[in-house]
Amino acid sequence: MNKSRLVKVRNLTIIPVQIMKNQFHTRREFLKTSTLAATSLPFVSALAARAQTAAPEKKLGFALAGLGSLSTYQIAPALPKTHFCKLTGIITGTPAKAERWKAQYNIPDKNIYDYGNMEKMADNPDIDVVYVVTPNGLHAEHTIKAAKAGKHVLCEKPMEVSPEKCRQMIDACKSANRMLAVGYRLHFEPNHLECVRLGREKVFGNMNLIQAEYGFRIGDPKQWRLNRALSGGGPLMDVGIYALQAARYLSGEEPVSVSAIATNNDPVKFKDIEESIAWQLKFPGGIIASCGTTYNFSGLDRFRVFADRGWFELAPAYGYGGIQGRRSDGKWTSFPPMDHFAAEMDDFAQCILNNQPTKVPGEEGLRDLKIMMAIYEAAQSGKTISLT
Amino acid sequence: MNKSRLVKVRNLTIIPVQIMKNQFHTRREFLKTSTLAATSLPFVSALAARAQTAAPEKKLGFALAGLGSLSTYQIAPALPKTHFCKLTGIITGTPAKAERWKAQYNIPDKNIYDYGNMEKMADNPDIDVVYVVTPNGLHAEHTIKAAKAGKHVLCEKPMEVSPEKCRQMIDACKSANRMLAVGYRLHFEPNHLECVRLGREKVFGNMNLIQAEYGFRIGDPKQWRLNRALSGGGPLMDVGIYALQAARYLSGEEPVSVSAIATNNDPVKFKDIEESIAWQLKFPGGIIASCGTTYNFSGLDRFRVFADRGWFELAPAYGYGGIQGRRSDGKWTSFPPMDHFAAEMDDFAQCILNNQPTKVPGEEGLRDLKIMMAIYEAAQSGKTISLT
Repeated sequence: MNKSRLVKVRNLTIIPVQIMKNQFHTRREFLKTSTLAATSLPFVSALAARAQTAAPEKKLGFALAGLGSLSTYQIAPALPKTHFCKLTGIITGTPAKAERWKAQYNIPDKNIYDYGNMEKMADNPDIDVVYVVTPNGLHAEHTIKAAKAGKHVLCEKPMEVSPEKCRQMIDACKSANRMLAVGYRLHFEPNHLECVRLGREKVFGNMNLIQAEYGFRIGDPKQWRLNRALSGGGPLMDVGIYALQAARYLSGEEPVSVSAIATNNDPVKFKDIEESIAWQLKFPGGIIASCGTTYNFSGLDRFRVFADRGWFELAPAYGYGGIQGRRSDGKWTSFPPMDHFAAEMDDFAQCILNNQPTKVPGEEGLRDLKIMMAIYEAAQSGKTISLT
Repeated sequence: MNKSRLVKVRNLTIIPVQIMKNQFHTRREFLKTSTLAATSLPFVSALAARAQTAAPEKKLGFALAGLGSLSTYQIAPALPKTHFCKLTGIITGTPAKAERWKAQYNIPDKNIYDYGNMEKMADNPDIDVVYVVTPNGLHAEHTIKAAKAGKHVLCEKPMEVSPEKCRQMIDACKSANRMLAVGYRLHFEPNHLECVRLGREKVFGNMNLIQAEYGFRIGDPKQWRLNRALSGGGPLMDVGIYALQAARYLSGEEPVSVSAIATNNDPVKFKDIEESIAWQLKFPGGIIASCGTTYNFSGLDRFRVFADRGWFELAPAYGYGGIQGRRSDGKWTSFPPMDHFAAEMDDFAQCILNNQPTKVPGEEGLRDLKIMMAIYEAAQSGKTISLT
């Protein structure tokens, strides 16, 4: 684990400026916003000069593996908004999708792969990074193939369906001397970073309780997310992971124990996976996190942190846009909308270009998988599971 | 247990009108409000005629046992707002308080008692009901003394510090053929009743998850609430019980299991009791409740119910005023402010006058005590505790 190294090398407070810069199309637009933000955020002010760096010399070529709705509606549209990335290739098992994407994004035939010939990417200098957006249970296979072909890998969350698979991915990238990051887009989102700051700087004193929930009513009963072999689990793996992540980065600690209760009111639709699950984490510094997720109802989209002298929250908290913060003292700072995926990809590209570690490495994905397995175990056994 | 009997005899939907009626000083004032409410609440409309009943023939005499801040600032000021109750006596161990109350409320010497001579109330026809507002761990002693003196008893929550003490209270009142109710004021609060209705009538479909939390940062470290011998526990016994109650009356079910995590970040101040505790309840119909309470921070004051097609919530939810509801479809009905204690006392008085069972009997207090003991056991053992 290179966590301590990460803390030294990369400073959390550096990220927002780079993100903001990347999200605005002109220097003037960015500076205007950063000056505005600087009135209440000293760390942004202190680093605003960075916004004046020149345009990047090189953009990294990204190939998307898996052309489902996330790639179609979020990631592909985000790529033109980045400063350091460009869409150069695709990997898909569906020839019709290949044709559509080829036409829409002007992708040359030589940069189109399927899951059976990914090793041929080794000879393709157009592709620097493979962004793995396939079903959870295929992430290891596709990550390992990409790494063996000499590509860096950005892998969607959850990293895989088991800690063992995560370790295989970490090992494969390490052996290939390639970087591996997990698509935790909210590590680059300014409202979330502001809440992390409020906690770290004890603006409201010591934190006591973190409530975090994310869930929704899932549609099509035939989608892969309801199939354990591909998903590894239900809403916990899919969106509960955001609540778990929030509890971890808001507390700044790793949980020491977990208890959980799961329910299943629709055992036909959710025959393979949990329908709803609520879990509680205990952190070594005394913080409790009370979290929940579901595939059966909507409205679960927030966190709130209760500290000694007040609280702060995001609600909605986890979507691609519309995130809204509040503080018990009424002094919330608004941030301009930004593209989470563009920020995430630009950060990874800069890590590669500057040979710096990512703050969302494979080890971070592995930590979540270990905790999620303990949450399932707690729900099944009715016992508090130790994580130490 | 006479729960099934209660359901038959008293209809939940009847209550609001009686409460509303009791809270308005003129018939005109009440009718105006009930007509307004009737536009969206058919059950209020259907029963509005009841508002025209005549003034009560007899007001029951209430003696307050324990003259702390709740009696001073809530209960005594509420009594003149009732229709069926009047303050006729006090029971206190502090002569200076007796003098102050005697002067302020014009209480005759013969109606002033201390905890050592409560048996003498048997000869006092001015006192029909003793409202026990002493520390939790003294409720049984004072309830039993009042019952033996032939008085009905309204006892503050939590009913006592153990299920065994609750059973003694129930038995004593039964032997004396006197009624016993627990001061669960929110059973008479129209916002809470509206949420119960939204759940029962499945306005948003089946309920899935109930989040309920109530807590605050406690002041004076020397108060009895921090002394386990008198309090029986910490914030769970004091205010967490409101979240537990909400989970139970919103679900309309009794929980089958509970898990919990407690924390204590200030073991000097909270040497005797839990500081914060989060717990989860599983109900037989598949609903999960995720609840929490604390004595160490503020801002924890709400519930939200997630159902198949939407949610509804109160936030703030549990205070003496300012309760605010919301629904996911935006169609919340506002209710006029009312005095919770006046409603609670009037309801108990009417139950006595009409010889009808209360919907908050001792058995209801006992149920909460049993569950709270299981919550503590779950937190201490790290195991899910079965409640069946």
